[in-house]
Amino acid sequence: MKAFDYAGVSPREVRQMIREGKWTLPTPGMCKGHVQGNLVILPKDLAYDFLVFAQRNPKPCPILDVTEPGNPEPKIVAPGADLSTDLPRYRVWVNGECVEEPTDVKKYWRDDLVGFLLGCSFSFEGALLEAGIPVRHIEQNRNVPMYITNIQCAPAGALKGPMVVSMRPIPAAQVPKAVLCTGRFPAVHGSPVHIGDPSLIGIADVNKPDMGDPVDINPGEVPVFWACGCTPQAAIMDVKPPFCITHAPGHMFIADPKDADYAVF
Amino acid sequence: MKAFDYAGVSPREVRQMIREGKWTLPTPGMCKGHVQGNLVILPKDLAYDFLVFAQRNPKPCPILDVTEPGNPEPKIVAPGADLSTDLPRYRVWVNGECVEEPTDVKKYWRDDLVGFLLGCSFSFEGALLEAGIPVRHIEQNRNVPMYITNIQCAPAGALKGPMVVSMRPIPAAQVPKAVLCTGRFPAVHGSPVHIGDPSLIGIADVNKPDMGDPVDINPGEVPVFWACGCTPQAAIMDVKPPFCITHAPGHMFIADPKDADYAVF
Repeated sequence: MKAFDYAGVSPREVRQMIREGKWTLPTPGMCKGHVQGNLVILPKDLAYDFLVFAQRNPKPCPILDVTEPGNPEPKIVAPGADLSTDLPRYRVWVNGECVEEPTDVKKYWRDDLVGFLLGCSFSFEGALLEAGIPVRHIEQNRNVPMYITNIQCAPAGALKGPMVVSMRPIPAAQVPKAVLCTGRFPAVHGSPVHIGDPSLIGIADVNKPDMGDPVDINPGEVPVFWACGCTPQAAIMDVKPPFCITHAPGHMFIADPKDADYAVF
Repeated sequence: MKAFDYAGVSPREVRQMIREGKWTLPTPGMCKGHVQGNLVILPKDLAYDFLVFAQRNPKPCPILDVTEPGNPEPKIVAPGADLSTDLPRYRVWVNGECVEEPTDVKKYWRDDLVGFLLGCSFSFEGALLEAGIPVRHIEQNRNVPMYITNIQCAPAGALKGPMVVSMRPIPAAQVPKAVLCTGRFPAVHGSPVHIGDPSLIGIADVNKPDMGDPVDINPGEVPVFWACGCTPQAAIMDVKPPFCITHAPGHMFIADPKDADYAVF
């Protein structure tokens, strides 16, 4: 079975399958139309700074849910779910180093841990595709190209750092539509942060992304940059917290709401 | 001098005037087009719950800025300003009781205090007026009518409670436009939470608001309800925190950004 075979299965059923250890692969393509989220789990003492950082930088840090300290249930976006078991693969970080990539984090769970789910670009990419706008890295079956920019996030407590962006080449005539149809989703990164000349945001070579894969930019296409959910993880890793858990790249949490639930118009 | 005489004065100048004690009256009408914010100042231990509460209930709790603990400068919306001096009147609360209504709170300031500025309905009322939609309580020179609903906010830590809403009667044909033009401002309460029959959200008599003044609802008009910034203050007062400071009603903080800066489309 491939991820796309689960496109029509409910989030609850897929989470159950993941919880039982029957699915340990990336989640893109599963539960089509439902929101997938990035996971960050922090001790409560750093959770406050993280909340403020997210509040000050909503485009790269769109929070979908915050759990009560010690309770791994994301009550807003998936009542009954368990953030310590319901993702297919995690990364456990100690002093900023990844020490394990387990398929659950039950043994690491503590009474002071707070789970954050953050919106991800899968949601607005669905909107782009539905609007007839190509999404190159999907066409080319690659990871989206990501870049560290010279746009500084507003710092909060110990957390600071540059904004990370993802790039999608858009045919020039479709750029306005791409702005409008992603702008409908401010809770999942929203409208682009930059359109056109990469050097204006500190990107030396658009063909050499800092993370992910390069994609083809065809004649007549404009590189369009959106705030990326890697931004908050990068800010956290920068402070090398004593303890932290994240999802493994591509192994997201699948929530109950649909992408459309986050549209503001 | 009346508030409207300061419609064209900059926020920085008006804040300076307030800081020097030369203006101690309500702020509506001052610095036209600039955002005015509700103030809540909390000790850091309760600030975390408040941030989570706001994250879970963004419509009634639209946070514009959060200060660093101990520092009264709202660096995002008004660099150089001072939340302990730049509002014309405050309320100081001890164990849930208002003990003083001073014109500054310098003597109460502490190293563990965090200031929150929350969006207010003045911003979207400007948008309604510009769209040619009447705002009845302004026409009638009254306070906006506010109601405690049966819509429960998502709780967070110690904070819970019902959503408080404000009501504006809108001519039926203009209701869609009122939805669209306030929906552009999700950071300042956004689109309505309810349109029409007040009983569906637990309001027994629309002519008897829980706070504020009743206003006339003319034939052919529909009562339209927006989430109200009184909601978070009510949730805080419900837990009777040992210490808390708020603005006095109508005596808001005038920030640098313009209302238009918060429009998402």
